[in-house]
Amino acid sequence: MEGISFEHPKRGEFALIETIRRHAAASAMVPVGIGDDCAVVNAPGGQMVITTDLVNEGVHFKLDDPLRKVGWKAAAVSFSDVAAMGLRPEVLLCAAALPGRLTMDDAREIFLGVNDACREFGVALAGGDTTSCRGGLSLCTTVLAYARDLRPVLRSGAKPGDAIVVTGSLGGSILGRHLDVRPRVEEAVALNSHFELHAMIDVSDGLSADLNHILEESSVGAVIDADRVPVSDAAREFSEQTRKTPLQHALTDGEDFELLFTMPPGEAQRLIERPPFATPLTVIGSITAAGLSIRIGDKTEPFEPGGYEHFVE
Amino acid sequence: MEGISFEHPKRGEFALIETIRRHAAASAMVPVGIGDDCAVVNAPGGQMVITTDLVNEGVHFKLDDPLRKVGWKAAAVSFSDVAAMGLRPEVLLCAAALPGRLTMDDAREIFLGVNDACREFGVALAGGDTTSCRGGLSLCTTVLAYARDLRPVLRSGAKPGDAIVVTGSLGGSILGRHLDVRPRVEEAVALNSHFELHAMIDVSDGLSADLNHILEESSVGAVIDADRVPVSDAAREFSEQTRKTPLQHALTDGEDFELLFTMPPGEAQRLIERPPFATPLTVIGSITAAGLSIRIGDKTEPFEPGGYEHFVE
Repeated sequence: MEGISFEHPKRGEFALIETIRRHAAASAMVPVGIGDDCAVVNAPGGQMVITTDLVNEGVHFKLDDPLRKVGWKAAAVSFSDVAAMGLRPEVLLCAAALPGRLTMDDAREIFLGVNDACREFGVALAGGDTTSCRGGLSLCTTVLAYARDLRPVLRSGAKPGDAIVVTGSLGGSILGRHLDVRPRVEEAVALNSHFELHAMIDVSDGLSADLNHILEESSVGAVIDADRVPVSDAAREFSEQTRKTPLQHALTDGEDFELLFTMPPGEAQRLIERPPFATPLTVIGSITAAGLSIRIGDKTEPFEPGGYEHFVE
Repeated sequence: MEGISFEHPKRGEFALIETIRRHAAASAMVPVGIGDDCAVVNAPGGQMVITTDLVNEGVHFKLDDPLRKVGWKAAAVSFSDVAAMGLRPEVLLCAAALPGRLTMDDAREIFLGVNDACREFGVALAGGDTTSCRGGLSLCTTVLAYARDLRPVLRSGAKPGDAIVVTGSLGGSILGRHLDVRPRVEEAVALNSHFELHAMIDVSDGLSADLNHILEESSVGAVIDADRVPVSDAAREFSEQTRKTPLQHALTDGEDFELLFTMPPGEAQRLIERPPFATPLTVIGSITAAGLSIRIGDKTEPFEPGGYEHFVE
């Protein structure tokens, strides 16, 4: 879930989102709605978070991708949204729009993939809906989690001076990792349990675009240290087939599903010195009062989120 | 939500559903999963119910249907699933797969329709997801409700001797009502608050098919009194264009979104004598130990759910 947003922006998109956000039927039950990885709901026994996500043939996967992996991905992207709130996913529902050309064995493969992910992450597969459709395969997953003794981490809490930290390495997920999504659930829960997090998001649109979501929701800016951005091997490999540098891929490719978060600099130091897990952690910059810029060597220049044209060689 | 089921059954469907049901990652948190209108979740503050539903272009609506009504329908069908549990919908999320030919104004109309339904029924629009797709328009709505001081009414509680009751009148929804869905939320909550309900479902697949869902989940049978089935004006009108009788339409047409429920016969008498709302209520038969049959005049004969061939004149 990205609140209500568009992966492939069109003219008028932001006006539409703002219209919906302004007019959406509101409720004291929903303190955080459109504009975060999950909605936060004030439930009778405490807060819960909930997210819904669509993955569509031809956009998020190809029909010749293994269907069991497609099912896995559909579940895993929603788990990643819950992880981005610092919580552990608990319950999943999956709705599938199945084109007529798919067989029952195909449908079975998809649901087995969804179920694989549920088992792997200890999530209950609670139900769903299966319908026929005239177009391509679409899977819609909904996942919820209760805050219990934790606090949902929002996008909106980043403060000037915060360190910006990212898990893992970034870029080139199209080479395979976009199907083998490993949501950072254990890492998210460990971070939220033992450290003061100000803001968090998962990297689905790309590092710079997702950092920008934090900046917009928090009304702050940021400086990224280009030299520190953890570039994945896949980004390097992919750059050999493209006109972009590995760094460009790390900054702008989508579907890494790493965690991107901000925290007080002292907390970041404590985290880096004694990380609670083996997954790499990198401080890639800091939150400022306003604007987004990038430091490359001695030079700092303004940076457009998603705007890799600054780096075309 | 229909658990995981297929509106347009294909060979192997039931084997698939049973496979999924048997293998689905289970949890003590989800006492009722696949096989009811909503999943029931044991949340920290009490039980909640949750449903997810897809509506797809070319299956549940046509692209030349007014998009605001399509949005309304997507929300209303999920509200109806919550009503079928005897509860009041509280929070909605909506995910949309938007084909490239739709404009931002089209997307706005869809979300305004979803929002219209949320406002009408006092539901919070908490968020969603919007993605592009290569095929037709699909909308996936997820709705949740907390049981609070009520008990979710399942499909599985019908007992031999129960009266079978239905709200409103049935058939011919394709003439218009399938877009102007009026989920029976107030009726459901009044029934669940003041009467002993054994089982309930909403009529989405058609009276006989949905009654059969109750029978299968409850391991019981039923006799329907054909003369008592409330046939809608739309069923009569539609039968003039088809080779079916109005009764056939009332028994087998989908998307009526009326409530179908069973209760002890004494409770049914009390309900009919002092109904808590103006919506018509009709006792259409009774639950038996096994089998499904229909009584027409003096004759009682076996009846195939959805099997209107018994009635071809």
